[in-house]
Amino acid sequence: MEFSLIDRIRKLTAQGRDDVRLGIGDDAALLAVPTGQELAAAIDTMVEGVHFPSGTAAADIGWKALAVNLSDLAAMGATPAWALLALSLPNADAVFIDGLATGFAQLAQHYRLALVGGDTTRGALTISVAVHGFVPPGKALTRAGARVGDTVLVTGTLGDAAGGLELIQRKHGRDDEQTAYLVERLNRPMPRVAAGLALRERASACIDVSDGLLADLGHICTSSRVGAEIETALLPRSPALLDLFGDAASCEFALAGGDDYELCFTVPPQQVAAVQADLARLGCSATCIGRIVEGKGIQILDREGRPLAPGRQGWDHFSA
Amino acid sequence: MEFSLIDRIRKLTAQGRDDVRLGIGDDAALLAVPTGQELAAAIDTMVEGVHFPSGTAAADIGWKALAVNLSDLAAMGATPAWALLALSLPNADAVFIDGLATGFAQLAQHYRLALVGGDTTRGALTISVAVHGFVPPGKALTRAGARVGDTVLVTGTLGDAAGGLELIQRKHGRDDEQTAYLVERLNRPMPRVAAGLALRERASACIDVSDGLLADLGHICTSSRVGAEIETALLPRSPALLDLFGDAASCEFALAGGDDYELCFTVPPQQVAAVQADLARLGCSATCIGRIVEGKGIQILDREGRPLAPGRQGWDHFSA
Repeated sequence: MEFSLIDRIRKLTAQGRDDVRLGIGDDAALLAVPTGQELAAAIDTMVEGVHFPSGTAAADIGWKALAVNLSDLAAMGATPAWALLALSLPNADAVFIDGLATGFAQLAQHYRLALVGGDTTRGALTISVAVHGFVPPGKALTRAGARVGDTVLVTGTLGDAAGGLELIQRKHGRDDEQTAYLVERLNRPMPRVAAGLALRERASACIDVSDGLLADLGHICTSSRVGAEIETALLPRSPALLDLFGDAASCEFALAGGDDYELCFTVPPQQVAAVQADLARLGCSATCIGRIVEGKGIQILDREGRPLAPGRQGWDHFSA
Repeated sequence: MEFSLIDRIRKLTAQGRDDVRLGIGDDAALLAVPTGQELAAAIDTMVEGVHFPSGTAAADIGWKALAVNLSDLAAMGATPAWALLALSLPNADAVFIDGLATGFAQLAQHYRLALVGGDTTRGALTISVAVHGFVPPGKALTRAGARVGDTVLVTGTLGDAAGGLELIQRKHGRDDEQTAYLVERLNRPMPRVAAGLALRERASACIDVSDGLLADLGHICTSSRVGAEIETALLPRSPALLDLFGDAASCEFALAGGDDYELCFTVPPQQVAAVQADLARLGCSATCIGRIVEGKGIQILDREGRPLAPGRQGWDHFSA
């Protein structure tokens, strides 16, 4: 199947990277990792009806397919450089392809990321992106460094994407600013790349919130062999989410909703003020939501500090 | 969707690569490209019903998904190192997943290739692999270097995979050695990695035959701004293909059938003997099939040296 997606994105994205020795158009790209840097690499797939609702705009799909991957680089504290794209599409719809290319390229341009290869085939709508970035040796953020006593923080607000999805699925027909905000948060997540870079010198562990706070903080706990306590009263939620869903539902979204692509990270308590100041300079809020404790698993504390059993332990995408 | 494919492959493949600083299990892998080497990177997708018939054994799918990507590295003269894998699967069938992991790992082990990341989702059966390899700066084989007067060669034999596919689609029920040979060539292509490395010092241009000789040699011609003449009488075909399909059909398969994953390359005439000797030492035949000429496009010459109009100009997979 021949369609021009890869070529269209190529024309819309960074051409001037001198670390791309040979770009799209041969059997493989030839790339130069800067001397003294390690390569961070990840791959993520989005499937229609699993990772985004049918009917999502093509430009949003293109944007998000790259965003979820850049979020993985952000969580490692890596600087984005290159991507490979594999797309399956039921038919070669020029308008759809153009939209997809535009959305992908908009986000790519933001980071001067170059698309260096791709493959397009006929099939159910599926988009896989492999991203590559750079990080100085030994400086990458991982899930494994959280220590007992560390403070747990998250960037931005949680639960917005789950709220946006709920609104789309209700087909409620509202057309106000708050709805638009939450749907935008679902469809156009902005990966926390600059925040990830700023955290490299201070965070003891980091992960992006893709599957939901409980699931993703759970990965930090497992990798670091510790437990965590989270206070629901501290969970940062947007005014839009609180207004449209109230405290209880927004809290559930913040704990178990996925697709936020904020960073959840841990720092020693004496570093909290400094890290918040670092991120504030980037226009990024960072909220303390709990602490790392001995043991394993996550304990959720309600407004009175009483342990709470969560209703859902994660997020298997909306079709679950 | 959670299933253990990535973990199973991880356990079955290279663990001891010291260029993998952090493997599967975090947001991204951390990798070290050897000093003085460039990174070659490519991605390819296989979709059920497009790139392999429904009913193909899971182990064959796993093998082939990696093989078609390693073939891209072979065509660049790159040494395989790492892969990322994205799989969509309708349901978590343990036997199928085990087969897929086994087939992928068998080929990966052959090259000490490490799987460093992956993503598994629910969806139509689709498998995307991104591969990474190393090549010294300036030494990569590309499609762009063919010069007028160069000899065109191919490794191995052509048309076997198309013959194997034809036999499967006929559901003819034959169960002889020749049929088994051709079906094996379709399902278990062996990428010409060692040949690609050996060609680095001698070939002026190189491509792997994935879409069919005419289509792929056409890419060399376009990139190199030259034309080519091919003599049908010279096309290397296996005894099995000739026996089962005869001269005319096997010739068509050799010209336009895809999925062979042999290398098509060009060398100055005075290098032909040396390059054939180099490849013979690797157990790989290399057959002269024509020459690079001025102009553009490919001219096919019949047994009497008369120009022939090809029936098909390429290969858009068997569903075309």
